[in-house]
Amino acid sequence: MQETFVFVLSLTAIFIFAKIFGEVAVRCGQSSVIGELFAGIIIGPSVLGIVNGLPVLTEISELGAIILLFEVGLSTNMKEFFKAGGWAIAVAIVGVILPYFLGYFTFLHFGFSSSQAIFAGAVLTATSVGITARVFSDLNTLETKEAKIVLGAAVIDDVIGLAILAVVSKLAEGSGVSFSTVANVTLTAVVFLVTAVGLGLLITPSIFKFIDKTKQQHLAFIVGISFCFTISALSIKAGLAPIVGAFAAGLVLSNLKQSKEIKNDLKPIYAFFVPVFFVLMGTNVEIGVFNPLIAENRHILLLAGVLFAVAFIGKAAAGFVVFQKGINKLLVGISMVPRGEVGLIFASIGLQNKVFVKEDYSALVAVIMLTTFVTPIILKILLSQKQKI
Amino acid sequence: MQETFVFVLSLTAIFIFAKIFGEVAVRCGQSSVIGELFAGIIIGPSVLGIVNGLPVLTEISELGAIILLFEVGLSTNMKEFFKAGGWAIAVAIVGVILPYFLGYFTFLHFGFSSSQAIFAGAVLTATSVGITARVFSDLNTLETKEAKIVLGAAVIDDVIGLAILAVVSKLAEGSGVSFSTVANVTLTAVVFLVTAVGLGLLITPSIFKFIDKTKQQHLAFIVGISFCFTISALSIKAGLAPIVGAFAAGLVLSNLKQSKEIKNDLKPIYAFFVPVFFVLMGTNVEIGVFNPLIAENRHILLLAGVLFAVAFIGKAAAGFVVFQKGINKLLVGISMVPRGEVGLIFASIGLQNKVFVKEDYSALVAVIMLTTFVTPIILKILLSQKQKI
Repeated sequence: MQETFVFVLSLTAIFIFAKIFGEVAVRCGQSSVIGELFAGIIIGPSVLGIVNGLPVLTEISELGAIILLFEVGLSTNMKEFFKAGGWAIAVAIVGVILPYFLGYFTFLHFGFSSSQAIFAGAVLTATSVGITARVFSDLNTLETKEAKIVLGAAVIDDVIGLAILAVVSKLAEGSGVSFSTVANVTLTAVVFLVTAVGLGLLITPSIFKFIDKTKQQHLAFIVGISFCFTISALSIKAGLAPIVGAFAAGLVLSNLKQSKEIKNDLKPIYAFFVPVFFVLMGTNVEIGVFNPLIAENRHILLLAGVLFAVAFIGKAAAGFVVFQKGINKLLVGISMVPRGEVGLIFASIGLQNKVFVKEDYSALVAVIMLTTFVTPIILKILLSQKQKI
Repeated sequence: MQETFVFVLSLTAIFIFAKIFGEVAVRCGQSSVIGELFAGIIIGPSVLGIVNGLPVLTEISELGAIILLFEVGLSTNMKEFFKAGGWAIAVAIVGVILPYFLGYFTFLHFGFSSSQAIFAGAVLTATSVGITARVFSDLNTLETKEAKIVLGAAVIDDVIGLAILAVVSKLAEGSGVSFSTVANVTLTAVVFLVTAVGLGLLITPSIFKFIDKTKQQHLAFIVGISFCFTISALSIKAGLAPIVGAFAAGLVLSNLKQSKEIKNDLKPIYAFFVPVFFVLMGTNVEIGVFNPLIAENRHILLLAGVLFAVAFIGKAAAGFVVFQKGINKLLVGISMVPRGEVGLIFASIGLQNKVFVKEDYSALVAVIMLTTFVTPIILKILLSQKQKI
């Protein structure tokens, strides 16, 4: 009973704080993710200490990450992915390579090991399409050329990012960095993703056509989420993170007639589990690390500052590969800056696998929060200037 | 990762089997609960052994019980409760007392201890209004006098049942049965329920009026479920089962303008968590106990048989307290027979608190399943006869 007591009360605290801070963030024109992370920092051990590491909460938050990536996959327009066009592909690739190496060398420069640097680089590669898409849609600019390039590039980034994650998290398990391990893991990841997506695309349409005929309410959702869990479990067996499978499952189902129905039924489940994930990510942040009055912290503060600059410039520069007239290159680049949820998942896997200690993790989360925080502000200025012209 | 693997796969198995067996049950005119319990028996250790006692699943199933009772509370029409009228109250009270003592003496007769008998009696007191209401509504007879008496009585049963549960589960913790403990616990339970419901009814309307003004989507739901979790946690602190608090919370919110919205948002959460509860209840059943070829089992089979007779007669007889012309007394009585989910929760708390061993628990679950199984069949016959007249 005592455990249930703590569990139920922790859940309540998570929901209430997530909702309040999420709402404040949204009212300030920010993503609710920022608010939820902040809620986690506040109720976590470094401030109020209401929520501590209860095993069942960790499991629920892992389920949250799986559901989050399933949703990202479901929301991915595969046609957009294939039609993204040359510029989107170019922006995506440069936007992965630049931040990766900038992050890698920054970490090395600050005296971290090469496996830590590899992981930190990976954290910086992700792009959170959600935040950018919301700003574009808020300002009625989703139909502009820039928006289309950015959204296409962000989708490609997700796929590249997950492949990188597969490789990097395998390395983090301690196999050490050698050409053969990298090649091996890359091959596993690619074979797994291609097989899962390929077989899925072959098999699921007939299953879901059958489901459609049964006219059974919510059956599509139950089968969809079971499919997601199965592929996630298989991806664990293949030595990859479960979220890789969850994303692949979402991608496979995104093309179905019932994908909207599945997404709709997923919403309350998402609203229940995903904030637990973000809040728990927040509880792992050690806020004391950012106190500039303590001399040892200045190193971490400097690291966070340099990483932020590097994370910002790396993506912003990627926009300038678009050699096309009439395109606002800065707008494209800056739209790619927010790292959001995918970057967070990378950082949390690094913490779980003990690649990072809490200080490094806190610095990375701060950088992710900052990129997610400043982008909407800058974008709104750029877009309103554009509209004036 | 290994734990996540088992967790995610167990969830998948639970969902798929629950859906398949639940659907088969519904097609056979039965409650999906029967199917879900059966699914649990099949995938549990006594048959396939796919799902074993994983701690995180137990926590999720406890959350399922909390959400289930919250929903029962939300669906309780308090006005109906107060307007139930004399006959409904009489049926409810007799329908609690008769099965309680019949169950109690049956258990004593079979050589069980008095605390086991007290618990077994309590298991038999509950009435599952859901199953009966569905049969009435399937046959378009929800507006008959009988239906109104039955639904009123079932609601009163829920409230009485939870008070009994509060007392009985406290006794099960080993305080022993004495007049002073019973009086003490009854007082705690009554004070807690009255305070929680009273204060809740005072405070919540203004909170929810404010929420209504914010026009924030899903806010009512988030606040509602947080309220449910808070009251559940408080009821644990008061030494009661969390479901007592969950039911009280549902009751408090059932009168609000937003109760429909809350129930609507709760549906997918319910669809996710509650089958886990029923399936896990099923996994605790030891099917081997019912093999008549093994001599030692005959005792349990006989117990289950007698208990079923007693459970059936106890409720059916309660219908005959209605001294009113033109009322089908047998119909009223038999409508009260299904024990359904509330009875199951009682039995599971008995198993958790080690009042019951797996054999007794299995017999009780079998009896609950049987009462839930036969009632729709008999009701349909009775109602079609009535309609012919």
